[in-house]
Amino acid sequence: MKPERRDRSHYVQFEQMTTRWRDNDAYGHMNNVVFYEYVDTCVNAWLIRHGLLDPATADVIGLVVHTSCDFHDSVGFPDRLETGLAVARVGTSSVRYEVGIFKDGASQSAADARLTHVYVDRVDRRPVPLSGEMRSALQALIIAE
Amino acid sequence: MKPERRDRSHYVQFEQMTTRWRDNDAYGHMNNVVFYEYVDTCVNAWLIRHGLLDPATADVIGLVVHTSCDFHDSVGFPDRLETGLAVARVGTSSVRYEVGIFKDGASQSAADARLTHVYVDRVDRRPVPLSGEMRSALQALIIAE
Amino acid sequence: MKPERRDRSHYVQFEQMTTRWRDNDAYGHMNNVVFYEYVDTCVNAWLIRHGLLDPATADVIGLVVHTSCDFHDSVGFPDRLETGLAVARVGTSSVRYEVGIFKDGASQSAADARLTHVYVDRVDRRPVPLSGEMRSALQALIIAE
Amino acid sequence: MKPERRDRSHYVQFEQMTTRWRDNDAYGHMNNVVFYEYVDTCVNAWLIRHGLLDPATADVIGLVVHTSCDFHDSVGFPDRLETGLAVARVGTSSVRYEVGIFKDGASQSAADARLTHVYVDRVDRRPVPLSGEMRSALQALIIAE
Repeated sequence: MKPERRDRSHYVQFEQMTTRWRDNDAYGHMNNVVFYEYVDTCVNAWLIRHGLLDPATADVIGLVVHTSCDFHDSVGFPDRLETGLAVARVGTSSVRYEVGIFKDGASQSAADARLTHVYVDRVDRRPVPLSGEMRSALQALIIAE
Repeated sequence: MKPERRDRSHYVQFEQMTTRWRDNDAYGHMNNVVFYEYVDTCVNAWLIRHGLLDPATADVIGLVVHTSCDFHDSVGFPDRLETGLAVARVGTSSVRYEVGIFKDGASQSAADARLTHVYVDRVDRRPVPLSGEMRSALQALIIAE
Repeated sequence: MKPERRDRSHYVQFEQMTTRWRDNDAYGHMNNVVFYEYVDTCVNAWLIRHGLLDPATADVIGLVVHTSCDFHDSVGFPDRLETGLAVARVGTSSVRYEVGIFKDGASQSAADARLTHVYVDRVDRRPVPLSGEMRSALQALIIAE
Repeated sequence: MKPERRDRSHYVQFEQMTTRWRDNDAYGHMNNVVFYEYVDTCVNAWLIRHGLLDPATADVIGLVVHTSCDFHDSVGFPDRLETGLAVARVGTSSVRYEVGIFKDGASQSAADARLTHVYVDRVDRRPVPLSGEMRSALQALIIAE
């Protein structure tokens, strides 16, 4: 019944992130909330790096409608972490990303999260179909299962 | 397919919380990560207020093993928010809490989250059965469905 | 040599704020960084409430050019806190605010902070003289020493 | 009157840190509060790396009694940042650190901060004289002016 701890091979793109003193809570480990800062950062960094999102000017932005996370192991400052990114599902105007949090170099995740973006018009916040450019970029992240 | 937006009647205990300038992200609304700060705070505040947790000295602490959240509507600073707390499932040493985030006075939630705590020994981090005192306090939060 | 701990009478406007589990760091008390979340929130809440700032649309926004804080006493979740606000200096386009952090009902501050805003054009970020409306509102906050 | 923007040469030790989506506030740049997360992290990382602090077990911990920061230029996610660390003053049981925040590779700081630690007994929180080991390590950080 325990949620499966993912292997690195489940994820496609990896990125190093540095931890902060404030990530740790009163129990001396990274607070559960903070994991989602890494998740959110991982997805948006990928979008920005691929020219798919300019937060200041984009007409279409990603609205987060669902997130979840299974926490397997404690991490915390001063660890170095890596996020692993993959895509589990591409819809008409939505994408379900999966993000693993790894201690730097670890073969198994410390936490596995999911984040669903609906892409919407910046002004009226109504769903907009994914562009062809976005669809091709997402192909490279799709989990082969 | 859209997740159900909860009515106030789904939750049992309510608490007011104040928002902060830093809760809002580049899109001008409360960042998805921050909702979990309210969730975590709501559960721990209830435990502390009922004498079930003293974070500095408790032998048994709540380890978060899973959280999830459906985001229905945007909120943000300077809104006043309320959290609604309920319990969906009590296991041997685990509890699944449900926490709704409401704009102050709203009848329907802006977001609905779940948080599963496993209660563990502070030192060896192994599960410990819930105390009788904890079980009775939890009764008052159980959702009648 | 120790910085003076302020009495409530040093401040003019008070506001209650709720603490969060994540405010506490590995030492079990509110992390020094978090005090500034209260400071920033206190100043912006006052501006918004007095119709002097609409963060989404304002042509003139407050840019923070300097902050400082003296920490006298530990506070933390689940304390209730109050911020006290005053104005120490009004320039052509800048204002130096002072913000005290108090445990709810305490007569002496737990921390005393300063924040200097330069009001600038949202687009080109060049200083703009304070409006007459802003100057009159600020009068009510000026410290009588 | 404007505070001096520091050159890299003012600082002694540099460390790369990654930014997060949540660092940016409603104006699209790194919120003033967040700079202090980098400052706090920079000082504690140095102490931990030199074996001068184990946050979980140390008998002597650093209590922050004062911080301040001059903000010169906007930075933000997805920038890479560097912190520069130096020591301005060593007292009997206190140290005044200086921390500069640089865009990765920049010759001038985006912000310059100061943080004063008083080293205290973990339990009774009374000042403890700096150890010889700490004093020698600090020598390497002292600003030659």
